[in-house]
Amino acid sequence: MLFFTQCFGAVLDLIHLRFQHYKAKRVFSAAGQLVCVVNPTHSLKYAATRCAAAQASTEQGILPPCHHHEAVHDPQLVPCTCPLFSCPWEGHLEVVVSHLRQTHRINILQGAEIVFLATDMHLPAPTDWIIMHSCLGHQFLLVLRKQEKYEGHPQFFATMMLIGTPTQANNFTYRLELNRNQRRLKWEATPRSILECVDSVISDGDCLVLNTSLAQLFSDNGSLAIGIAITTSKVHSSEAEM
Amino acid sequence: MLFFTQCFGAVLDLIHLRFQHYKAKRVFSAAGQLVCVVNPTHSLKYAATRCAAAQASTEQGILPPCHHHEAVHDPQLVPCTCPLFSCPWEGHLEVVVSHLRQTHRINILQGAEIVFLATDMHLPAPTDWIIMHSCLGHQFLLVLRKQEKYEGHPQFFATMMLIGTPTQANNFTYRLELNRNQRRLKWEATPRSILECVDSVISDGDCLVLNTSLAQLFSDNGSLAIGIAITTSKVHSSEAEM
Repeated sequence: MLFFTQCFGAVLDLIHLRFQHYKAKRVFSAAGQLVCVVNPTHSLKYAATRCAAAQASTEQGILPPCHHHEAVHDPQLVPCTCPLFSCPWEGHLEVVVSHLRQTHRINILQGAEIVFLATDMHLPAPTDWIIMHSCLGHQFLLVLRKQEKYEGHPQFFATMMLIGTPTQANNFTYRLELNRNQRRLKWEATPRSILECVDSVISDGDCLVLNTSLAQLFSDNGSLAIGIAITTSKVHSSEAEM
Repeated sequence: MLFFTQCFGAVLDLIHLRFQHYKAKRVFSAAGQLVCVVNPTHSLKYAATRCAAAQASTEQGILPPCHHHEAVHDPQLVPCTCPLFSCPWEGHLEVVVSHLRQTHRINILQGAEIVFLATDMHLPAPTDWIIMHSCLGHQFLLVLRKQEKYEGHPQFFATMMLIGTPTQANNFTYRLELNRNQRRLKWEATPRSILECVDSVISDGDCLVLNTSLAQLFSDNGSLAIGIAITTSKVHSSEAEM
């Protein structure tokens, strides 16, 4: 009996995912856009650092600065950049992608424009939604994080990091776009390098920031669809264009 | 001696304003865009309601709901919609603009696309920056508010209201755009009618919301330039366009 109940539950989940996928496709209807359903992960690394930070600054709830770089002795090696887990791995920049895929099971998607469909936005903070995005000959890491910067007031932070050096990152512009309920919000910026810490980018607030109320306005049935596009950088011309 | 010091101060202020105007023009360099320097106003109405609200909910700091409509007995009359002052005035919708101009000295600007340059962003909350914008045969009220929704953490909220009915408002789309330091943030939405309360739009968070850190990234020398454009509504086509 329990077996049948579980089977029925699984079928319902599949139908629900398919329905979400269809809805996201309907909103982001441009041809060739890949919709990727991204499930949340409760960040273990974050929870651990948070406990340590709590003693230092309980009120602010700000993450301690990232000390990745201090642990690296060989300048050719970079630490594991997975935002989810504390991981002792270090290796060359070229093999970070395969480490993230194999060890941390982060999916990778191809395409200049994709739709990132984050499910279960209601889950309590801290929660992360993560994928890698392969585009224009490079790999990018997209991180959506639900975090309580101010206690009791979770916010959503979304940013894109290049799995490459800061000099390489300067050649690109990424765009995150939310579009629902006759509202549209677009964030465009130069991606940061994965060598900089994703935690500090988010604590600096230098990313797309959504209050819970705004996230709800853009969500559909608990899922948030974010359109992602990456282009080669044309910052000066785009500033003049306004 | 005091007279000369004051004259010198005034000249310095003029040079500073001119310099800000030039800088905003440089960023928003498209031909025909009018740059309007908007000085902050410490919201007296807000401060008063806030004191009353403080007793009810000190921690949340949320504004009490707007009770404009309850005071209106003649359905043809609307109350004063000035977000700055509690004002006993009521009149027909057609004369709200002249009331706001004459009694509350809110400036009005012409043009499809203008640049709103809010000065002195560092001033403590609650502070409002307000202008009226005349465009496409209608008048709009742009409100930028610095407010502490969470105590000790001021945020900036920007929204545009049509000085007209909700049905008329549905015919338009407004866009607010920030562009600086290789970052761009765009908010597009249908304006609300001035018959709805600007306070509730802001407390709902259904507007452009900026954390202090993001506002600083987009500010230049303490001033925030917001590009404003109003178009007739093409919501369904723009959703499909993504």
